[in-house]
Amino acid sequence: MTMQLNARLRIGAPDELLLESADGRAEPLHPLWLRERCRDAVSMDLRTQQRLQDPSDFAPDLKVTALSQPAPGVFHVTFSDGHQASFSAADILAEAALAPGSHDCPAPRLWDGSLRDLPRVRWRSEPADDELRAWLESFLTLGFIIFEGVPSEPGMVLKVGAQFGFTRETNFGALFNVRSTPDANDLAYTSIALDAHTDNPYRTPVPGIQLLHCLVNQTSGGLSTLVDGFAVAQALRNREPEAFRILATTPVRFKYLDTDAELTASAPPIELDVTGELRAIHFSPRLDFVPLYPRAQLEAYYRARRLFDHSLRAPDFEIRFLLKDGDLVMFDNCRLLHGRSGFDPAEGLRHLQGCYIDIDGPRSLYRVLRRRRERAGELRRSA
Amino acid sequence: MTMQLNARLRIGAPDELLLESADGRAEPLHPLWLRERCRDAVSMDLRTQQRLQDPSDFAPDLKVTALSQPAPGVFHVTFSDGHQASFSAADILAEAALAPGSHDCPAPRLWDGSLRDLPRVRWRSEPADDELRAWLESFLTLGFIIFEGVPSEPGMVLKVGAQFGFTRETNFGALFNVRSTPDANDLAYTSIALDAHTDNPYRTPVPGIQLLHCLVNQTSGGLSTLVDGFAVAQALRNREPEAFRILATTPVRFKYLDTDAELTASAPPIELDVTGELRAIHFSPRLDFVPLYPRAQLEAYYRARRLFDHSLRAPDFEIRFLLKDGDLVMFDNCRLLHGRSGFDPAEGLRHLQGCYIDIDGPRSLYRVLRRRRERAGELRRSA
Repeated sequence: MTMQLNARLRIGAPDELLLESADGRAEPLHPLWLRERCRDAVSMDLRTQQRLQDPSDFAPDLKVTALSQPAPGVFHVTFSDGHQASFSAADILAEAALAPGSHDCPAPRLWDGSLRDLPRVRWRSEPADDELRAWLESFLTLGFIIFEGVPSEPGMVLKVGAQFGFTRETNFGALFNVRSTPDANDLAYTSIALDAHTDNPYRTPVPGIQLLHCLVNQTSGGLSTLVDGFAVAQALRNREPEAFRILATTPVRFKYLDTDAELTASAPPIELDVTGELRAIHFSPRLDFVPLYPRAQLEAYYRARRLFDHSLRAPDFEIRFLLKDGDLVMFDNCRLLHGRSGFDPAEGLRHLQGCYIDIDGPRSLYRVLRRRRERAGELRRSA
Repeated sequence: MTMQLNARLRIGAPDELLLESADGRAEPLHPLWLRERCRDAVSMDLRTQQRLQDPSDFAPDLKVTALSQPAPGVFHVTFSDGHQASFSAADILAEAALAPGSHDCPAPRLWDGSLRDLPRVRWRSEPADDELRAWLESFLTLGFIIFEGVPSEPGMVLKVGAQFGFTRETNFGALFNVRSTPDANDLAYTSIALDAHTDNPYRTPVPGIQLLHCLVNQTSGGLSTLVDGFAVAQALRNREPEAFRILATTPVRFKYLDTDAELTASAPPIELDVTGELRAIHFSPRLDFVPLYPRAQLEAYYRARRLFDHSLRAPDFEIRFLLKDGDLVMFDNCRLLHGRSGFDPAEGLRHLQGCYIDIDGPRSLYRVLRRRRERAGELRRSA
């Protein structure tokens, strides 16, 4: 996003609105790119900000025919189809600066096992905007946040989740209980240790964010673990690019089975977006099955998987912490892997409640808060 | 899936379990591939079928040391780590036959505007297994199905959705009403025509399946339209491979804004999975914004977008039908685009209710029904 931050708009020729970088390079903005951003009542439904014309209906050779600057920071453009529109320079510069694929939110800050200052905050049911924004920044940069003081009442996890996004119901229900049960339909519901994994890799789409609320923990074991899967993947990319490439291009089948469901999904352990950036980690050693590739390809895959797996389990990358009664951890299930150490159920109760919400909720909320703050700032300046 | 259907397993050397194709080619199964599929109580939690060992802990050079065939269709394998396990040849052959990325479900059958026999069926609240399987086959192959006779009661759409998967709540609620309202927060809630589009491309993840239930339609317009986006994309891939490549590799920003939400997502108009197969179409001419690429790249993108858009709107690819009171259409929002013709709200009411469910619900249900039928067949044979 920084590239264009010092850029400005200026009129070059009478038919060229130039985007000029800090270093003096200037390039005319493409007329179609401008035209599809017109924000007048003919081009756009003003309430919903949804476009009223299909950009493919504009003339392919559309041109700018006249330009003026009626006020500082405002440009008035006439197009060759006769349409006229005003543009805010600030809006255009902000959009020009957005990198393809950017979420327009605080970027992930990768971490490893040396992370000491865990983002622990006191939960409140009605946080002030600044407080909420700080929570969101922790979550968006580190991929997790731990709330303390969430009342140990059943169902509170859904209430906290609803502060950040839409509940995502799964085969385990809208809300699930994590405690050892004699007749478990998932190993999570036993007392055995769980290595770092992502949840529900057999779903399409996978649940984006997980919340786990500790109602009671009377055991000395059962520590929660988190690993920044993006950090491990990035380290692998640097150290063993070929292993990284294999894990990013080999779809693996994940499978879940019970009486009412047979969920399978194929995804590479390391999923990239179309720009080559990390998009999601899909990793669960209990559920993954690589297709029957030719021998050499299988050999390469198993080697890459081993390298990745050993790093994911190494103390260099893992953090451990105890969830006490009333603690709630919320983490990005597309980026972080989670696990727990084993515990002795004879020591006492360990009861967590969990739920999932969609990945885009916190980002949406962050942008809404930013917009609200910017608007308040504008109002103050104009007062 | 067909490739290996005539394959068989046989013992080659004492340390080689061979997968032999119909044409006589034989290849030994990789010991690690076999080892991670052991289904005994040490290797796997028998109730959940979840693996109890991390495959990366097996020796990289694991070997098969002994083989026997104690019964037809059963192979007993001893591994160099001392572990022994029995394998069902049918299970191994079925898995070996699964193509990477396959959903193990009926494959899409692409269609265009010449599709005449629309999949219209009488809805029932408690369909027999065979009936339900037929519904699922229509949906999975064509990407949609129309149910008739769904009681015109508010909320029924959620009930029908729950027959096939988990409700996906969005910024429009778990259930949304589609009727023209004076203060609409989305153009869907007006009476204007809507060109073919996919819903909520600004969400991550996008809602996978949409259900629209017609409670009442007293207008002569307001026809529903559907387009098989995969068919259009495939045609483009054949005719204009470079345009296809551009649309499959250029992330576009989709945006939705209201008081409480600012949802944006970046996705290429044509999304491929890691094997190069079509995964999803993201297309909504009201909401898409291409980043500011260099001029030549923008030119190429606009040209490709135009080609795609014009096909998506061409009668060659579109089907139109009237949703009558009690009709409900369920369609794959990752594959199909939908729209409607404009209508005159003065003619009378037009009221639809909609909801979304996750894309993997029908597939899961299809596999459960298949498993149930296979098991019933086995019981009959053994009786």
